[in-house]
Amino acid sequence: MVQVRSLFFDVFGTVVDWRGGVAHGAETLLAPLGYDLDWLAFADAWRSEYQPAMEEVRAGRIPFSKLDVLHRYNLDRIRPRFGLDRLSDEDCRRLNLVWHRLPAWPDSTEGLRRLRAKFLIAPVSNGNISLMVDIARRNDFMWDAILGAEVARDYKPKPEVYNAACAAFDLPPDQCMMVAAHSSDLAAAAAHGLRTAHIARPNEHGPGKGEADPTVPVDIAAKDLIDLAAKLSA
Amino acid sequence: MVQVRSLFFDVFGTVVDWRGGVAHGAETLLAPLGYDLDWLAFADAWRSEYQPAMEEVRAGRIPFSKLDVLHRYNLDRIRPRFGLDRLSDEDCRRLNLVWHRLPAWPDSTEGLRRLRAKFLIAPVSNGNISLMVDIARRNDFMWDAILGAEVARDYKPKPEVYNAACAAFDLPPDQCMMVAAHSSDLAAAAAHGLRTAHIARPNEHGPGKGEADPTVPVDIAAKDLIDLAAKLSA
Repeated sequence: MVQVRSLFFDVFGTVVDWRGGVAHGAETLLAPLGYDLDWLAFADAWRSEYQPAMEEVRAGRIPFSKLDVLHRYNLDRIRPRFGLDRLSDEDCRRLNLVWHRLPAWPDSTEGLRRLRAKFLIAPVSNGNISLMVDIARRNDFMWDAILGAEVARDYKPKPEVYNAACAAFDLPPDQCMMVAAHSSDLAAAAAHGLRTAHIARPNEHGPGKGEADPTVPVDIAAKDLIDLAAKLSA
Repeated sequence: MVQVRSLFFDVFGTVVDWRGGVAHGAETLLAPLGYDLDWLAFADAWRSEYQPAMEEVRAGRIPFSKLDVLHRYNLDRIRPRFGLDRLSDEDCRRLNLVWHRLPAWPDSTEGLRRLRAKFLIAPVSNGNISLMVDIARRNDFMWDAILGAEVARDYKPKPEVYNAACAAFDLPPDQCMMVAAHSSDLAAAAAHGLRTAHIARPNEHGPGKGEADPTVPVDIAAKDLIDLAAKLSA
């Protein structure tokens, strides 16, 4: 196997817990304002607008817009369903920033620290640069660079996002490994020549609702990021 | 004064010593091959092709090309003058990478570490992403993100490079401060609304050949990056 020099990470679900983080962040902001929602259902509803919004960009129906913009658009779509019609613009802006403070899964910070000792590491996420920067600060991640959708100006799984990441590091695809908890992301990366590592996140969408195992062939299947470090001798 | 939240750094000359680094790197590579040049003159000659090459991109005469590509083009232009006509393509490739291993000025690593405790920090350099990543690894710099020419796909002092950096961090220009040892860079940043800090590098181009003081109005003039940290209470 060709030597891997760089690891590219999916972030939402793979490195951080978006579901628990959005639910907790929304409750922290909205409960003091008198709101009482099903916070996890709210997080699920917000996330469920994610792919359709990106598809507008991928299909070329709207120009590239960073994920913060799509998140806000999606929030405005779901607000009526949760009785949040009258939330002020400033509170919506603050609510949108809950994505910037998502918490790492328990293994992520240590796993990334170990992996960085041996590999160049970068997020190749659909999240925008400022979002990735704030999540890194919140969780003590040390990325070598922030790559992904905003640099490529398109969204995964479009080929350009993977290609732009390899090009930014001057590496051929087979020296880069995509790390994700989602088989669809890994299948796309593999189709463009990258190596792949699957991370089990069996509870990403709630208890038992996540990928415990990959559904596509991968180079490595790991239990978490510390296990990935062990499997890569990092 | 509006609160500054992010510091953007020029890198070549401001954070690292390109002249000493290129001279030393070239000697390390070429002396064992039997070459004996005036290494500092070679570094100066290579650097003197820097602005004209970028101007081809800025003026739209050639498409955006990352600095590694321009460095290699410039190397091929100056090789005959230094008797390096017969250097192999592989040795030229290795020689071009001396820019990836430039050494920090003595204050840079500690200064950046202190500044990072209070501000988001990013290079806004004309150097490409992989070049910035390798220099950071070599010198233990911890950037929040790699911004600059490759992200903006144009070269300083074009407005787009400064604007793209502010936009990546979701900040208005007056919450961003450009840090550079070159008054021309700071004048351009100030023209686009950024705050400015000048770093004295009086020996950048050789003894006494560098900017000991800014030649334009700046918000802060500092002796080095540790002094800048002190002046910003970081």
